Amino acid sequence: MPPSRIIFLVCDGMADRTLKAKGNRTPLEAARTPNMDSLAADGVCGIMDPIGPGIRPGSDTAHLALLGYDPYKVYTGRGPFEAAGVGLELKSGDIAFRGNWATVDAKGRVTDRRAGRIKEGTEALAKELDGVVIDGITVILKTATEHRTVLVLRGKGISCQVTDTDPHKENLLAGCKALDNSAAAKKTCNVLNKFTELSKKVLKDHPVNQQRVKDGLPPANIVLARGAGMTPEMPPLAKVWGWDPIAIVGVALIRGICTLAGMEVPFVKGATGGVDTDMLAKAKAAVGALKKHDLVFMNIKAPDIGGHDGNFDLKMSSIERIDEAVGYIRANISSDVGLIITADHSTPVPVKNHSADPVPLLMYGEGVRTDDVKAFNEKAVAQGGLGRLKGKDIMPILQDWVDKAEKFGA
Amino acid sequence: MPPSRIIFLVCDGMADRTLKAKGNRTPLEAARTPNMDSLAADGVCGIMDPIGPGIRPGSDTAHLALLGYDPYKVYTGRGPFEAAGVGLELKSGDIAFRGNWATVDAKGRVTDRRAGRIKEGTEALAKELDGVVIDGITVILKTATEHRTVLVLRGKGISCQVTDTDPHKENLLAGCKALDNSAAAKKTCNVLNKFTELSKKVLKDHPVNQQRVKDGLPPANIVLARGAGMTPEMPPLAKVWGWDPIAIVGVALIRGICTLAGMEVPFVKGATGGVDTDMLAKAKAAVGALKKHDLVFMNIKAPDIGGHDGNFDLKMSSIERIDEAVGYIRANISSDVGLIITADHSTPVPVKNHSADPVPLLMYGEGVRTDDVKAFNEKAVAQGGLGRLKGKDIMPILQDWVDKAEKFGA
Repeated sequence: MPPSRIIFLVCDGMADRTLKAKGNRTPLEAARTPNMDSLAADGVCGIMDPIGPGIRPGSDTAHLALLGYDPYKVYTGRGPFEAAGVGLELKSGDIAFRGNWATVDAKGRVTDRRAGRIKEGTEALAKELDGVVIDGITVILKTATEHRTVLVLRGKGISCQVTDTDPHKENLLAGCKALDNSAAAKKTCNVLNKFTELSKKVLKDHPVNQQRVKDGLPPANIVLARGAGMTPEMPPLAKVWGWDPIAIVGVALIRGICTLAGMEVPFVKGATGGVDTDMLAKAKAAVGALKKHDLVFMNIKAPDIGGHDGNFDLKMSSIERIDEAVGYIRANISSDVGLIITADHSTPVPVKNHSADPVPLLMYGEGVRTDDVKAFNEKAVAQGGLGRLKGKDIMPILQDWVDKAEKFGA
Repeated sequence: MPPSRIIFLVCDGMADRTLKAKGNRTPLEAARTPNMDSLAADGVCGIMDPIGPGIRPGSDTAHLALLGYDPYKVYTGRGPFEAAGVGLELKSGDIAFRGNWATVDAKGRVTDRRAGRIKEGTEALAKELDGVVIDGITVILKTATEHRTVLVLRGKGISCQVTDTDPHKENLLAGCKALDNSAAAKKTCNVLNKFTELSKKVLKDHPVNQQRVKDGLPPANIVLARGAGMTPEMPPLAKVWGWDPIAIVGVALIRGICTLAGMEVPFVKGATGGVDTDMLAKAKAAVGALKKHDLVFMNIKAPDIGGHDGNFDLKMSSIERIDEAVGYIRANISSDVGLIITADHSTPVPVKNHSADPVPLLMYGEGVRTDDVKAFNEKAVAQGGLGRLKGKDIMPILQDWVDKAEKFGA
């Protein structure tokens, strides 16, 4: 009997390149991963290009592809997914930005892009600006962790074809500029630039900032915006593919993608989206979620962080902790559950950034056509029975695996 | 550190099929190739469909794909690439043909398609016809090696949707016919047919031909045209991908493709585009070019010639000579240089023509994810870590390798 339920685990940025200094091994090869190795031996493996060969994926575009959406159609920028990830309810057509509380001096120079990594008082600051209407466009401002905010423009005739107001380094405040000649882009710039000026006026003498100045801390006296994106129409994953899905995800960007895909995305205690995340708690939540859901989508961010930091050992130990979580999952699922493990992209330690190297892929459960791969690592799985696939192939393959797929033809 | 410069070697037609009579080996398997085998052992390998599975590539369309152009968009015929390859400066929209000096009798029968492989006097003949204007269309005629010419029509309202005037075997002269109902195709036929008649008139009593008849040689008394193609708009490779490229290529067709891709294509002494080419001279030129360029594209034509001739041993020995050149390259590049070796298509000895069998692919240098392949041949590399790619994937993969790739998403 093929499985009727699936756990789909994405180990963020797990794949890597061979490091000579580490005995010509990748972190995944070097890590002790008895559970994933055993799943590889009992399952079927392959490699996958999340977007396509040579295309360096973002976490966002890769996850969209893995969930069956065409990132070339639905992705215009990171803003909407970040906004959805911190719980903002977006409407199709909303223009969303990531934002920072920042410090600007009297000459318009941004002296601290994070306002001293402000932690407290940001809710009170946001309250002063959230909901203002400028030229008929409603501005929604929500504070996220520390200095982070999300900023949404809602209304008619606006566009994401605009530049950031964030200068990205200590520099003069950047005015928002249109990236095309449309009236919508010009209008959006006007609204955002007016909002930026308004934020300076409103925040200047706010009690929170008066106290910060008194304490010798940089005031949060401006809101900077970057990463404009238009909230796409994304038909719910449940409707497109016929699953009853849930996402066990910590990091905001991926929470946002899953939310916009119409998935339930509960908070799991101890799941931080960082290297300190409680992986076992996530594994337990995933297994528990199988009672009510037939597709449990998981993201574990930790290996990506080691990759970005260029820290082989951190990445390796994150992978070993994932392997323990996978051991828990395997021990606690019944034979009607299939398990698919992959990554959203490579984040090679020597590159400290995403790369387009293909990622390993493993499917374990009833109904897979097994192969001779005995270990779960980049080199071993390249010999696997699945060959080289693309991210967009995964959802159809899952459909077929659980026997939901419809025949094309007779 | 990933490489910052690349040598990209295309061994023309190198791939083949298994020959029972040769111990179930391909020429590449049978050849002694210690250098390429060692690169395979230290690098990563795979197989590649230059255009797509089952699509039998031309050298031209395959090279276009390898250089990142879509041959389905830019390729309408071989003419423009041949013309550019012999140094003609083409303009987008020019209709170019390959041409032959040929011999036609009084009844309009082509008795020798190559005018006795005429070698001398062709410059003088071409001078009589080059630059004539017919119905407002300028005809450019340039002589190439031996009996070969290129013929370009330049002007408004012309098309490449026309048949050849070359009968392709000893036969009556073919009139050029339109392949569609457009006015442009009809006009092009008219111009080409008038030019053909003009060539007969002008060449008939030309001193070169009077002498040939006296010497008992067939006169070059007509110009035949074939392979009409419209010169495409090709944005320079440097602009599209951000490389500073150079091509070390002998054979005219590929020289033309590289020229139309905006690449510098120097003449290398001893590089003939034939089996007699000085491969070591090309290898030296390639290594030398790394001083000023970050992408050195090489084509070595020789193995293709053995394949077309059905000559296993000739093909094998060409490959062994390539391996020596590769040995020179490996010994003379620093660790910031990556090396990619592949073929543009298979030219199997038993087929004596191009086939769609995938070609071997090898990437050697810092930053590749190595695999367990130990030899460079069609069978061994099919087990490689790259799996099965397409020609169009190569440029993006190179971008990613040297860390020029932009991330799609965040």
